[in-house]
Amino acid sequence: MGTAQKFANIFEKNNSLLCIGLDPEIAKFPKSLLSKSNAIFSFNKAIIDATYTLTATYKPNIAFYEAYGLDGLKQLKLTMLYLQDKYPEIPVILDAKRGDIGNTAKMYAKSIYEYWGADAATVFPYLGYDAVEPFLEYKDKLTILLLKTSNPNSKQFQDLMINKEPFYYAMAKKIAAWKKQNLGVFVGATYPKDLTRIRKLFPRAIMLSAGIGAQDASVKEAVRAGVDSRGRNIVFNASRSILYASSGADFARKAQDEAEKLRDLFNKYRK
Amino acid sequence: MGTAQKFANIFEKNNSLLCIGLDPEIAKFPKSLLSKSNAIFSFNKAIIDATYTLTATYKPNIAFYEAYGLDGLKQLKLTMLYLQDKYPEIPVILDAKRGDIGNTAKMYAKSIYEYWGADAATVFPYLGYDAVEPFLEYKDKLTILLLKTSNPNSKQFQDLMINKEPFYYAMAKKIAAWKKQNLGVFVGATYPKDLTRIRKLFPRAIMLSAGIGAQDASVKEAVRAGVDSRGRNIVFNASRSILYASSGADFARKAQDEAEKLRDLFNKYRK
Repeated sequence: MGTAQKFANIFEKNNSLLCIGLDPEIAKFPKSLLSKSNAIFSFNKAIIDATYTLTATYKPNIAFYEAYGLDGLKQLKLTMLYLQDKYPEIPVILDAKRGDIGNTAKMYAKSIYEYWGADAATVFPYLGYDAVEPFLEYKDKLTILLLKTSNPNSKQFQDLMINKEPFYYAMAKKIAAWKKQNLGVFVGATYPKDLTRIRKLFPRAIMLSAGIGAQDASVKEAVRAGVDSRGRNIVFNASRSILYASSGADFARKAQDEAEKLRDLFNKYRK
Repeated sequence: MGTAQKFANIFEKNNSLLCIGLDPEIAKFPKSLLSKSNAIFSFNKAIIDATYTLTATYKPNIAFYEAYGLDGLKQLKLTMLYLQDKYPEIPVILDAKRGDIGNTAKMYAKSIYEYWGADAATVFPYLGYDAVEPFLEYKDKLTILLLKTSNPNSKQFQDLMINKEPFYYAMAKKIAAWKKQNLGVFVGATYPKDLTRIRKLFPRAIMLSAGIGAQDASVKEAVRAGVDSRGRNIVFNASRSILYASSGADFARKAQDEAEKLRDLFNKYRK
């Protein structure tokens, strides 16, 4: 099944705008897990089994696996296989933020969509269309282009002004003109005005967002700014607040509580 | 030894501006290698042993290993260990083009500089200073920021005009103002004018360049535009032309011939 259909189905089934970021940090794991041989996979499995009815998507950020070398990547593979086998209805975004040219971009696309088997991936559009095309050629997948990030310094370059418009927006307009169906966009939730203008450019695209705080107010703004006309097609990533809600043996149940709380909070502001 | 010193020493010792891109494509390997269990590592080893006196640096692009999954990455590890053990005097650039924010950037930096043990890495500056800082914190390493790529569509976004200057240049000026010593820059060789203006901004930085053609003319322009006042501190990547100079059993010797030819060609135009 194509990724667009998977998202359509899961929005219907789980009624959630939550994206759970599977970003393992072993130092934060409960002690009971540390003696296991595949601690990262065991941790992910417990989180997934406790939250699969509450989330729209899972999003492993590959950096957290690469930091543990080949062993970490092996456990990402186990996680991907587990998701594909046990929860094939849930789309998986591999957050890899790749970007390279020509033949090299093809290799990254092959790795992410064929080897890792992700449904979606995050990619830098900065290098131009020919660097993104090898990803878009996987028609059944969703390639999410990074437009505006949520970090404090994101304005430094992304908001440099081009004819009275910030750079990221000038880039977004050109990307919208490509008229590609299997393209999603990333916009940080810390800038709700950016979410609003990007949603206008991409009325139906799947949006990925992140950086949402604990403040009720900013969640309200971000959800209202990001949803499409049917009140869906955006997902907000939460990682640490869910994964490490407890460092005790009850971590999975506490993660479930936190995921449920966030799902309900996002839903409160949907149209 | 720090990466800056490694580069200074190797420019002295090997007198070369060549960067050899270790970008394995198994389909292009000589048939004799295909039956071996670690074909990629065997191939790399043969190339390295044949060229280590001719090159300033080796640059594996991690995409070509990720495309082969965990097995490919295992062979990248074998390659990195081999280089560190047998040729510790040659700096190794891991071309990974990473870019992410905060905690995630830390994980990528940890992976590249600690797990893979690279001397240098390529990184996207687009997300802003806080996304680059975790790499720069490895003071002994060289973090090479991608300013302008060599692909046909690179102008699409990178050359959008900000106050009569292309975006990549406006970004480069802000980066130069960071005044960081352990920072290198990437500029494609297909745009010699860009090399010239970036060299002026970063008079002493190590530059990495790529996309040089077979045309003598463009090599001349690129070398003259890119070298520093001492005629060094830029390396030009060549990958396929060296690695696949022959698809027969003589591939390593042919690679050596090609590497020697390129070294001599670059040197012809140094001041």
